[in-house]
Amino acid sequence: MTTGSRDRAREFIEQNWVTNTILGVIIFNAITLGLSTSDVVMNHVGGLIKVIDRVVLTIFVLELLVKFYAYGLRFFNNAWNVFDLVVVSLGLLPDRSGLSALRGLRVIRALRLLSVIPQMRKVVQALLDALPGMGAVIIMISIVFYVFGVMATLMYGDRFDEWFGTLGRSLYSLFQIMTLESWSMGIVRPVMDVYPMAWAFFVPFIVVTAFSVLNLFIGLLVNTMQSAVEAEAEAEFEQLRDLVKSETDVVDEHVRALHDELRALRRELAELRGGRDG
Amino acid sequence: MTTGSRDRAREFIEQNWVTNTILGVIIFNAITLGLSTSDVVMNHVGGLIKVIDRVVLTIFVLELLVKFYAYGLRFFNNAWNVFDLVVVSLGLLPDRSGLSALRGLRVIRALRLLSVIPQMRKVVQALLDALPGMGAVIIMISIVFYVFGVMATLMYGDRFDEWFGTLGRSLYSLFQIMTLESWSMGIVRPVMDVYPMAWAFFVPFIVVTAFSVLNLFIGLLVNTMQSAVEAEAEAEFEQLRDLVKSETDVVDEHVRALHDELRALRRELAELRGGRDG
Amino acid sequence: MTTGSRDRAREFIEQNWVTNTILGVIIFNAITLGLSTSDVVMNHVGGLIKVIDRVVLTIFVLELLVKFYAYGLRFFNNAWNVFDLVVVSLGLLPDRSGLSALRGLRVIRALRLLSVIPQMRKVVQALLDALPGMGAVIIMISIVFYVFGVMATLMYGDRFDEWFGTLGRSLYSLFQIMTLESWSMGIVRPVMDVYPMAWAFFVPFIVVTAFSVLNLFIGLLVNTMQSAVEAEAEAEFEQLRDLVKSETDVVDEHVRALHDELRALRRELAELRGGRDG
Amino acid sequence: MTTGSRDRAREFIEQNWVTNTILGVIIFNAITLGLSTSDVVMNHVGGLIKVIDRVVLTIFVLELLVKFYAYGLRFFNNAWNVFDLVVVSLGLLPDRSGLSALRGLRVIRALRLLSVIPQMRKVVQALLDALPGMGAVIIMISIVFYVFGVMATLMYGDRFDEWFGTLGRSLYSLFQIMTLESWSMGIVRPVMDVYPMAWAFFVPFIVVTAFSVLNLFIGLLVNTMQSAVEAEAEAEFEQLRDLVKSETDVVDEHVRALHDELRALRRELAELRGGRDG
Repeated sequence: MTTGSRDRAREFIEQNWVTNTILGVIIFNAITLGLSTSDVVMNHVGGLIKVIDRVVLTIFVLELLVKFYAYGLRFFNNAWNVFDLVVVSLGLLPDRSGLSALRGLRVIRALRLLSVIPQMRKVVQALLDALPGMGAVIIMISIVFYVFGVMATLMYGDRFDEWFGTLGRSLYSLFQIMTLESWSMGIVRPVMDVYPMAWAFFVPFIVVTAFSVLNLFIGLLVNTMQSAVEAEAEAEFEQLRDLVKSETDVVDEHVRALHDELRALRRELAELRGGRDG
Repeated sequence: MTTGSRDRAREFIEQNWVTNTILGVIIFNAITLGLSTSDVVMNHVGGLIKVIDRVVLTIFVLELLVKFYAYGLRFFNNAWNVFDLVVVSLGLLPDRSGLSALRGLRVIRALRLLSVIPQMRKVVQALLDALPGMGAVIIMISIVFYVFGVMATLMYGDRFDEWFGTLGRSLYSLFQIMTLESWSMGIVRPVMDVYPMAWAFFVPFIVVTAFSVLNLFIGLLVNTMQSAVEAEAEAEFEQLRDLVKSETDVVDEHVRALHDELRALRRELAELRGGRDG
Repeated sequence: MTTGSRDRAREFIEQNWVTNTILGVIIFNAITLGLSTSDVVMNHVGGLIKVIDRVVLTIFVLELLVKFYAYGLRFFNNAWNVFDLVVVSLGLLPDRSGLSALRGLRVIRALRLLSVIPQMRKVVQALLDALPGMGAVIIMISIVFYVFGVMATLMYGDRFDEWFGTLGRSLYSLFQIMTLESWSMGIVRPVMDVYPMAWAFFVPFIVVTAFSVLNLFIGLLVNTMQSAVEAEAEAEFEQLRDLVKSETDVVDEHVRALHDELRALRRELAELRGGRDG
Repeated sequence: MTTGSRDRAREFIEQNWVTNTILGVIIFNAITLGLSTSDVVMNHVGGLIKVIDRVVLTIFVLELLVKFYAYGLRFFNNAWNVFDLVVVSLGLLPDRSGLSALRGLRVIRALRLLSVIPQMRKVVQALLDALPGMGAVIIMISIVFYVFGVMATLMYGDRFDEWFGTLGRSLYSLFQIMTLESWSMGIVRPVMDVYPMAWAFFVPFIVVTAFSVLNLFIGLLVNTMQSAVEAEAEAEFEQLRDLVKSETDVVDEHVRALHDELRALRRELAELRGGRDG
């Protein structure tokens, strides 16, 4: 009986009009979240916006509950369900004034647009699929970052507390340097005023990380290209196989016809011989 | 009769010397528009430049009218005509002093160089052809931009009005951050002075958008490469097909010659038999 | 007789030890030019450095004269000769104090390292070979630059004289914006303080030029890749051709052997018949 | 006997548990080095951290001594051993207070993570393998850098001592300009205030280096792609070869069967003839 109601729950949640309604609610909520950034709108219909937000959140929670009831623990097998669970949960966090950061996290919920529209799922999936192939290089870059981060903290932390005072600050500053943002005018030239040899630390860092990121990119590109070329080559091979087969089949057919002819000749000869012998 | 005059209009506008004259006028206008940026030139022959501009504009309007008369509503089937219509229309806007923005828009007209020179049309067409394949990723990036824009406005809008005060300002600032321009020294470090955890918002944004743009680029590249390789593979396949055909044809010919020989032999044998039997 | 001495001049200038000596002189000169940047060196042996420079320049001029004598007007057929002529001539310009720019131009002469070392010539040649294929896109970007430059001058020139006061300044500023250097914090935000809609001019400019440059790059990449793949495909095709040929040759040989056998049979049969008839 | 103890040393050092222990020590040391950047940690357990560092260093030195004893001079054949030797030696430098640079160099030791984990070795190896193919372009860029560096020093060194005062400073500034960091607002615009034509020096430099780096990247990409495609093409060729062989073998077999039949016929005919003649 429980199974029966679960089946019904699954049927219900998988109906087209239900998923479309949810999609509609997400888009509607994305718009109201956008409107909630406007002071004018909030001054006039702020109460309405807040009520809408509560209602939408309730709908999302109900949707997740139905899904969880319908699928049980298999609910967690689908990464998109987990994603939905997390972004909806962020909206349930207490909304104390002052904690504007938490207020903002609520909006992440609009990213459900990515998890609900199938084409978007595919794009995100493609992006995520690219990650494993980049694993080794990412770990290498992480090690380089860690080592350079510790070094920068020990070497420049005392004199440049804001940039390299702690390991965290160093890692952030190195990330900024890797993106090449104000690396020289903003960071390295001031450091070189105190430690004239600092360029010997930062320039190799830039070259090594730029070169690694480049290789990351090339690896990604070659992988994508290769799968594309592979499909291409597969199709070409099919064509060639069919061609070679049909061409050799023609020759083979003629050889067989020849064989038949020869057999006929042999038969006739046998008859001839038989006739003569007979 | 109307159709007759329409046909004549079409013949006229499609003549080589007409299109070349129009091209000449566009280039001439591009030069006078360039000269109009010089205060020295404007002080001496500013009146002439303005008269030229009116004359050129009149020529363009007449050209469009003739084209519209010649093609009727099919005029709008050609995107280049629509482009010409829009950029010429911008020159008809009232040129009130103070509205220097409108004064500048007039110059867009010189972009007709792209719509009139066939090679330029091809390049632009190639750029536009690349867009549909990037549709899904562009929509994804737009969603990410919107969500991060709303979040930034809600979280940092109060304290950093100039950068994140409204949704529009946030989107602009995020675009700046995506291009990596002054993202850290200019924006994120000041924000981190107030909200120390702001890096946890901006660094993922940079990584996600950089990675998405990279994938956009890789997708574009693989597509272009694939069409190039496809043509290549097609040509190679043709060659191989011809080769396999000619080679098997040689064998086949020999088999056929053999067959003929065998048939001759059989005929002789039949004659032999007939001769014996007869 | 003149032809004879010309031949001798050519033989002389093409000898290995002569070209190697010239290469040595170029490297030696590159080093002394580098040393001439040091105040300490110039204070101590500045006179010597200047003498060396004169001597080296004399050697280069003599080399060019001999070459010109040896090849006549064909001297100008080789782009590298023209390059050498230009960079050496720059050293003959009067060296008035104050004109430090001219003083610097002398150093371009060291770029002869690129024209004298064969491997460097190949690299430079490869770079130059890539240019024609990019012609159409470069013209397109130039048109876009010109149009946006004129527009920016007309729209923002009055209020931002330093950046957009003349067409030249606008083009320089747009180049800076295209490289994304300080485009927002340095240029567009200040402009937006006066013209709030300026983002609608600059953001599309960035997107269009970035996209065009990307396509330029993709075109270049696909071209390079294609030639590489073409050579690859050519080699593969050769292999396949040899394979198909040798395989069908085996079959063909057997068919021919068969044919011989059949002919022998026919001959025997004819003999049999002749024997019987005879 | 020495060889015996050397063999035993080699066996010992190549045992799994030994390499794993070393890896564990490296990771443990990487963490303690990270902790040593924290003032709180150093105030409380700074003595312990220092002792750990000494112990770890001792372990590394012993490991290297054993390896050197085991492999003798062949120790230096393996680039990774040399790398380990260098980074461990840096930790033996005197740790005088004030020389915080030397204090930081100690941390490089954590890069042994790259030399000890096999996957990391492979990634680093792949990066290094890419270098030789880029040799010619790197030399070309170096020559361009040197020439532009000397020119910049001679032309702008007097007035802009901080940026172009010496050849070293010029090279650093040109590297910054090549990365496009603050090139215009930070360097070229100020220089242009004094030398209005400076853009004619820096803009070509940017275009040339950007184009060269682009070609470096394209060369690298095409190489990587080519090896990938080559493997692909090789596999496809194998398939095609097998296909062509099996297909022609079928025809060939039929031809041979035909030949057998013909031979049988000939034999019969010979018998017939023999029978008749006999």
